[in-house]
Amino acid sequence: MTLKVYADRMSQPSRAVIIFCKLNGIDFEEVKIDISKRQHLTPEFEEINPMKKVPAIVDGRFKLFESHAIMIYLAYVFPGVADHWYPADLSKRAKIHSVLDWHHSNLRHGAAKYVLNSTLGPALGRPLNPKAAAEGEKILSASLAKIESVWLKGNGRFLLGSLQPSIADLSLVCEIMQLEVVNEKDRDRILGPHKRVLKWIDDTKNATRPHFDEVHSILFKVKEKLKRLQSRGAKDETQFTKKTALQSKM
Amino acid sequence: MTLKVYADRMSQPSRAVIIFCKLNGIDFEEVKIDISKRQHLTPEFEEINPMKKVPAIVDGRFKLFESHAIMIYLAYVFPGVADHWYPADLSKRAKIHSVLDWHHSNLRHGAAKYVLNSTLGPALGRPLNPKAAAEGEKILSASLAKIESVWLKGNGRFLLGSLQPSIADLSLVCEIMQLEVVNEKDRDRILGPHKRVLKWIDDTKNATRPHFDEVHSILFKVKEKLKRLQSRGAKDETQFTKKTALQSKM
Repeated sequence: MTLKVYADRMSQPSRAVIIFCKLNGIDFEEVKIDISKRQHLTPEFEEINPMKKVPAIVDGRFKLFESHAIMIYLAYVFPGVADHWYPADLSKRAKIHSVLDWHHSNLRHGAAKYVLNSTLGPALGRPLNPKAAAEGEKILSASLAKIESVWLKGNGRFLLGSLQPSIADLSLVCEIMQLEVVNEKDRDRILGPHKRVLKWIDDTKNATRPHFDEVHSILFKVKEKLKRLQSRGAKDETQFTKKTALQSKM
Repeated sequence: MTLKVYADRMSQPSRAVIIFCKLNGIDFEEVKIDISKRQHLTPEFEEINPMKKVPAIVDGRFKLFESHAIMIYLAYVFPGVADHWYPADLSKRAKIHSVLDWHHSNLRHGAAKYVLNSTLGPALGRPLNPKAAAEGEKILSASLAKIESVWLKGNGRFLLGSLQPSIADLSLVCEIMQLEVVNEKDRDRILGPHKRVLKWIDDTKNATRPHFDEVHSILFKVKEKLKRLQSRGAKDETQFTKKTALQSKM
């Protein structure tokens, strides 16, 4: 039975899992759970993931959610996954766990809070919240600085000084990519000071093409919609909200 | 060279790692990093953990931080660790990863925010913040409900229907234990509705005695101090703050 991946490409951990499967030639069926249509809240999806979040997988009779756990599981059970994604070497593996644990309360927390409160709020039926956006930006910027000074230390192009990407690179870069929907001035202000982070994002994109670009294309479409919105003003914004309301899964 | 565990027993993930080592007969040296004395901010400790947080370990030349990553590493490298703590069975292991990932943004986030803003704030030189405490309580209560309805589903006494505890049980129960410093009425209001959670906490304590009680004894001392404080009023509170300021590591 084919692996099923329940995902919405608007969700950054969903994108990481889909890209991971494609990169590693894992045969899977992508089942779209459209958050904007509240499909993650249906009783059918609750049977797959009682936490009502994407991504989730079903492999035979085995169900699993949480993107890091999913990628680790897939790396174990699919023999075609190259070692660099989740190395057998215990110290390398331990460091990858450390990055992934750190991710939750730092980069993920900051990026999601910032993007929601600075940009996506109205599309979710929530007002923008500059105070919360500023708090999110502070955590996000501190996290980017730590990626640069701690996780990207060393000679390799990837996290932990590695020469090839791991699931940690994929997970963190997908997280940062949500900044694509933010206006360019703000994104440049936040990412601009972190030259090494910018290079690492490019290196990760290059190492995971063409799947990275294909799976992220949805973000660029949303960005264009938001741009048109901003130029049209508040009236159309309401229409946009009704038509394409985006639900956060954080 | 003996394993070094850098920890402050006031920190819930520090307690989990210390108890894990003691339960499994791992030979280790506990190095106290007194957060109230800001020892986690010294250049010496930054050499151990550049994120300036406890717990962290040094095993020979290998350094690691993040408590979940540490316990997984120790389960791999110390042959005396019983399988139930971190099962070799891939599906069981994957589910434990899923619980641990979920922990970060749910139980940990809610419990820490609630305790800080309802109780420990003044001891950290921060005012109590009822609004933030209410937000924390909401996340905490929702997390406790999910532990009960999702993670404790099944016939076993422990998470994921297991008959013996894993690192996920230890980690989550240590997190909940911080509620010991909160006043009893509030703790009962929050924990009381979750009978199955209360039984699981007891089962985990019983399965990990006497180390669980010994490592948690610091919480009961702090609780007594806070009680004396409350009965003495604001003036003494300031003295307490100056004398025994507790620093959050969240």
